[in-house]
Amino acid sequence: MVAGAVLARPAAGQEHRMTGMDMSMDDCIDMCIASNRMCLETANYAAKRGGALASPVMLAMLADCAELCQTTANSMLRGSPLHQVLCRACAEVCARCADECSRHGADQQMVRCAETCRTCAEGCRTMGAMDH
Amino acid sequence: MVAGAVLARPAAGQEHRMTGMDMSMDDCIDMCIASNRMCLETANYAAKRGGALASPVMLAMLADCAELCQTTANSMLRGSPLHQVLCRACAEVCARCADECSRHGADQQMVRCAETCRTCAEGCRTMGAMDH
Amino acid sequence: MVAGAVLARPAAGQEHRMTGMDMSMDDCIDMCIASNRMCLETANYAAKRGGALASPVMLAMLADCAELCQTTANSMLRGSPLHQVLCRACAEVCARCADECSRHGADQQMVRCAETCRTCAEGCRTMGAMDH
Amino acid sequence: MVAGAVLARPAAGQEHRMTGMDMSMDDCIDMCIASNRMCLETANYAAKRGGALASPVMLAMLADCAELCQTTANSMLRGSPLHQVLCRACAEVCARCADECSRHGADQQMVRCAETCRTCAEGCRTMGAMDH
Repeated sequence: MVAGAVLARPAAGQEHRMTGMDMSMDDCIDMCIASNRMCLETANYAAKRGGALASPVMLAMLADCAELCQTTANSMLRGSPLHQVLCRACAEVCARCADECSRHGADQQMVRCAETCRTCAEGCRTMGAMDH
Repeated sequence: MVAGAVLARPAAGQEHRMTGMDMSMDDCIDMCIASNRMCLETANYAAKRGGALASPVMLAMLADCAELCQTTANSMLRGSPLHQVLCRACAEVCARCADECSRHGADQQMVRCAETCRTCAEGCRTMGAMDH
Repeated sequence: MVAGAVLARPAAGQEHRMTGMDMSMDDCIDMCIASNRMCLETANYAAKRGGALASPVMLAMLADCAELCQTTANSMLRGSPLHQVLCRACAEVCARCADECSRHGADQQMVRCAETCRTCAEGCRTMGAMDH
Repeated sequence: MVAGAVLARPAAGQEHRMTGMDMSMDDCIDMCIASNRMCLETANYAAKRGGALASPVMLAMLADCAELCQTTANSMLRGSPLHQVLCRACAEVCARCADECSRHGADQQMVRCAETCRTCAEGCRTMGAMDH
C-alpha cells in the first residue's frame, strides 16, 4: 500500500492523513468495538475461571477498557471534534490493559485479549496524532 | 480548610493527597455525575432552542463530555488503577466543552453548563495528578 | 403528603402525576444514579471478597444493573419520549439484581446493595406507569 | 434456511432455539452494534441537516436507541442472565425509533436508519423470547 493512500471504508469526510501512515476513522472504530467485545467476554471468562485471573484489578481494568473503547468509538461516530482526546486516552488505557492481560501469558484467552487491546492501542494512538 | 486535610465523604481507602491541595475521590465522582447531568440537559435544551446553539459541533461535544464524565466516574467507583488516565482525559474534554459553551455567553443555560464543566475539569485535573 | 402534590426538585416541565402517588422525574434520576454507584462499588467489593460473592452471575448482573440504571437516567435527562420503556426495563433488572444480592444476606454490603436496587426498582416502576 | 438451523458464528454455548426460528447470540450482538453505529451517525447527520430532522424528540430517541443497543449488546457479551430483559426493551425502543425515522421517508439516511433499527428490533424480540 502506498504511503498517503487511504484504507478501505473511509466514511465521507472522515479521511485523515499523516506522514507515512494512514488509517480511516472507520478502521479505528472497528478496532475499538472489537476491543470492547473482547474485554467484556474476557471479564466473564476470568470470573468463571476465578483465582488470579479474577483479581479486582484485572476485572476493573477490563471493565474500564471496554467502556472507554465504546466512548471513543461513539465520539468518532458522532463526528466530534473531541475524538482525538478520547483516542489518546483510549490508546493509554488499552496498552495498560494489554500489559495486565499479558501477565497471564499461559492462558490463551488472556493472550488473545492482550493482542486485541494492543491493536486498538496502536490504532487509537495513530488516530489521536493525525493532522486534520 | 487546612492544606493536607481531606474533604468530606472520603470513601474507605480512597483518600488521596497532593501538596497543597486535597480532594476525595467521592468529590470527584460527584463532579463527574453533575457534569454528565448538566451536559445531557443542556443538549436537550440546545436542540429545543435550535439555531447556533444546536450546531453539530456543540451537540457532539455535549454528548461526548456527558459520556466521558460517566466513564470516568465509573472507573473511580470500580476502584480501577486506570482512573487517573480517565481523569486527565476528562479534564481536557470538560475544559473544551466549557469553552464551546462559553461562546454562547448570552444564554444562561450555556453559562451554567460551562461552569459545571469547568468545575469538573478542575476536579479531574487534580485527581489525575495525585500521588498514590 | 397530599395526593397530587409534586416532590422536591421537579425539573421544569417534568412533573408527572398518577392517582395516589407522585414522583418527580428528578427523584427517579437520583435513584438510578444511586443504584449505578452502589452496583459498581459492590462489584468491586465482591471481586475483593471472592468466593460465592464473586460468581460470574453476580458480577454480570451488577454490571448490567449499573449500566441500565445509567441509560435510564440519561433517557430522562434527555427528556426522551422513550424514558418509560427504559424505566420499566430498569425496574425489572433492579428487582432481579436485588434478589440475587439478597441471597447473600449475611453480608452487609450485599444487603445495602439489595435495598438501593429495590428502591430504584420501585421508583422506576412508578415512573414507567405514569400517565403523561 | 431450514427451520431449526443455527445461523453463522454462534459463540460456544450461546446457541438458542425456539420453535421455527433460530438466532445465535452473536448475530443479535452484531445487530445491536450496527444499530448503535447507525443511530449515532444519523444523529450527527440530522444535526447537520437541521430543521424537522433535528427535532429534540428525534435526537433524544436516536441517542436513547444507540445507548440501549450498546447496553443490550454488553449484557449478552457478559453472558448475563438478565440479557433477555434488555433484549425485550431494546426491541421496543428500536421499533419506536424506526417509526420516528420513517416519518422522514424522503430522506435516504433516515430510511436506512429505520431499516437497521427494525432489523435489530426483530433480532432482539426473537432473542428476548427464546427458551433457555
